[in-house]
Amino acid sequence: MSRLTATYHVRSDARAIEARAQAIAVEQSVEMPLSAIEDQQVLDEIVGRVEDISALSLGLYAVRIALSRATVGDDPGQLINMLFGNTSLQQDVVLHDADLPPEMVTRHGGPNVGLAGLRARAGAGNRALTCSALKPQGLAPDRLAQLAARFARGGIDYVKDDHGLADQAYSPLAARCEAVATALRAVERETGRRTRYVPSLTGDLDALRAQITAAKNAGIDTVMVQPMIMGLSNFARLAAENRELAFFAHPTLAGTRMSPPLLFGKLFRMLGADALVFPNHGGRFGYSPDLCGELARTALSDWHGLKPAVPVPAGGMTIDRVSEMLDFYGSDVMLLIGGALLEARERLTEATAAFVANVQEHRHG
Amino acid sequence: MSRLTATYHVRSDARAIEARAQAIAVEQSVEMPLSAIEDQQVLDEIVGRVEDISALSLGLYAVRIALSRATVGDDPGQLINMLFGNTSLQQDVVLHDADLPPEMVTRHGGPNVGLAGLRARAGAGNRALTCSALKPQGLAPDRLAQLAARFARGGIDYVKDDHGLADQAYSPLAARCEAVATALRAVERETGRRTRYVPSLTGDLDALRAQITAAKNAGIDTVMVQPMIMGLSNFARLAAENRELAFFAHPTLAGTRMSPPLLFGKLFRMLGADALVFPNHGGRFGYSPDLCGELARTALSDWHGLKPAVPVPAGGMTIDRVSEMLDFYGSDVMLLIGGALLEARERLTEATAAFVANVQEHRHG
Repeated sequence: MSRLTATYHVRSDARAIEARAQAIAVEQSVEMPLSAIEDQQVLDEIVGRVEDISALSLGLYAVRIALSRATVGDDPGQLINMLFGNTSLQQDVVLHDADLPPEMVTRHGGPNVGLAGLRARAGAGNRALTCSALKPQGLAPDRLAQLAARFARGGIDYVKDDHGLADQAYSPLAARCEAVATALRAVERETGRRTRYVPSLTGDLDALRAQITAAKNAGIDTVMVQPMIMGLSNFARLAAENRELAFFAHPTLAGTRMSPPLLFGKLFRMLGADALVFPNHGGRFGYSPDLCGELARTALSDWHGLKPAVPVPAGGMTIDRVSEMLDFYGSDVMLLIGGALLEARERLTEATAAFVANVQEHRHG
Repeated sequence: MSRLTATYHVRSDARAIEARAQAIAVEQSVEMPLSAIEDQQVLDEIVGRVEDISALSLGLYAVRIALSRATVGDDPGQLINMLFGNTSLQQDVVLHDADLPPEMVTRHGGPNVGLAGLRARAGAGNRALTCSALKPQGLAPDRLAQLAARFARGGIDYVKDDHGLADQAYSPLAARCEAVATALRAVERETGRRTRYVPSLTGDLDALRAQITAAKNAGIDTVMVQPMIMGLSNFARLAAENRELAFFAHPTLAGTRMSPPLLFGKLFRMLGADALVFPNHGGRFGYSPDLCGELARTALSDWHGLKPAVPVPAGGMTIDRVSEMLDFYGSDVMLLIGGALLEARERLTEATAAFVANVQEHRHG
């Protein structure tokens, strides 16, 4: 019977690790004493199986466990349930990685357009992409549309909603889509260059679908989602129903003990994320350079034929870091600078143009 | 403008805590430098406001922050986004508690039937309720139905699916509902006593609705959900659409840095959880007795007129702990013993009857 394998990093002392590994294998599969299982097929095929235990450092082990493909089926929520559901409640364990059956990966299908599609839509050739964010929340659609127009005059590729923007009374999503898209079309008539607006979708699946309809009605072809808040199953459904849309995935509420390269670079990508927003090292969040590099490599790697998803390092980035970030990530990246551009206030368009120029003129070594 | 307040526990040294608290207030609201905000109304009403900082112990502070009601609206996903979304990515912060506006709490409405309703359906008077779990996953519907019948002959009140049971090919949810409900009706004709089956619902909102229809068609009035996997918005939608159903909430994937009394006892309850499954102290998980007690008290407390939700301490419980648990929790509890009953194998009905008798005969001090 087909298997998937999960690799956990487990804090334990040497004497306890074998029993601890076996306990995780049981917790993530049959969740009961094996002595109480009468069915031989369940014991052979359904019970998780410890495949390897290796020491990483003093008191830290990598534990590889094979799980039954049949228990997961095709639902992404059940996938995360079987990989980490109950074990997420145990503080000594991190879900580090997972190897998924190729047919599962290809069935979900991955990014609709991926890095290449996002570049082609922006006419960006092979260079790094640029992005900024509409904020602060609390502004009405017309004010956000004015901001978007000023970013667009600076030549930015994508302008996304801050992840706090939702379908609020003071800025309903449908009105915001209409106002921002109209403003960006006006700039396009001036400059000949189209900046794309990426509204943030929120709510239950009904609300998300209604918001996608509103975005499409405004001529929008790129949206942002919050997979850990809407649930992986609903995200996958939206991506599958809207193959012409590109999806940015935002990391909000992803502060679990699942490794970001796995969660963003494999799972979000597999379910349809074209762009992966994540907190860059040296910003407001604690991701290390190594972690960021691994996340970007995973998102871009050749993996069962999926399109590459573009890494979007963010979270307190500034123009003076553009060169360093492009040296670190190479050109297969989307740089996102929000607050630091907005700080330019009346010089927002000029600051944006400087950001865009820095990216376009960077020479990759 | 109306506010909600979030209380975070923050690891910090004394010199840094004021700046750190202010940074959280910004992160969870406008997410940009205040110097870049031109709009006075946003500064006055939308920016998070640090209301209190108090030392809990050396290097640990309680930080209370007021957030704008208007940024949240009525969507539970946006509520969790504003309470903890990006800050969940910062390892030094735990979301400890939240005070929500009464109109928000009453609008969501809380449990459909609550503890009293679950007791009334079981004819349980004022005693503690009893529950067990169908497992292992991998069994076909008829095998699970046989197990359910044996639990029922032992007199158990509720039999829930193990949280690993989904809509799998070897045990489709609709077939499982039909098989288990039929078996339980047959036992009811023998014994005059009805045990209720609580199937576990999984998948996107479309799938969840289809599964609810299948459950109702089988005469089932109680279901289990996984709020952190399906997303809080979808859970709230299901509970609101099905006011005649009772909902068990399972804690799978809830291993975030949100305090369980808040997440389960307030948020899940507010959104419609009638019963809250959580890992009891002294089982397979690391919750402390203090934490379990606080969770149970929160779930049962008088809170803006919501019905009490029944705490369901679980995760490796055994019959020999029944008396201790009833002394600890009192009678406003549902005791859930799964694997330890199944270990009795051919004596499953007798072991269940012993569990039920222990609960019924317990004298609360």
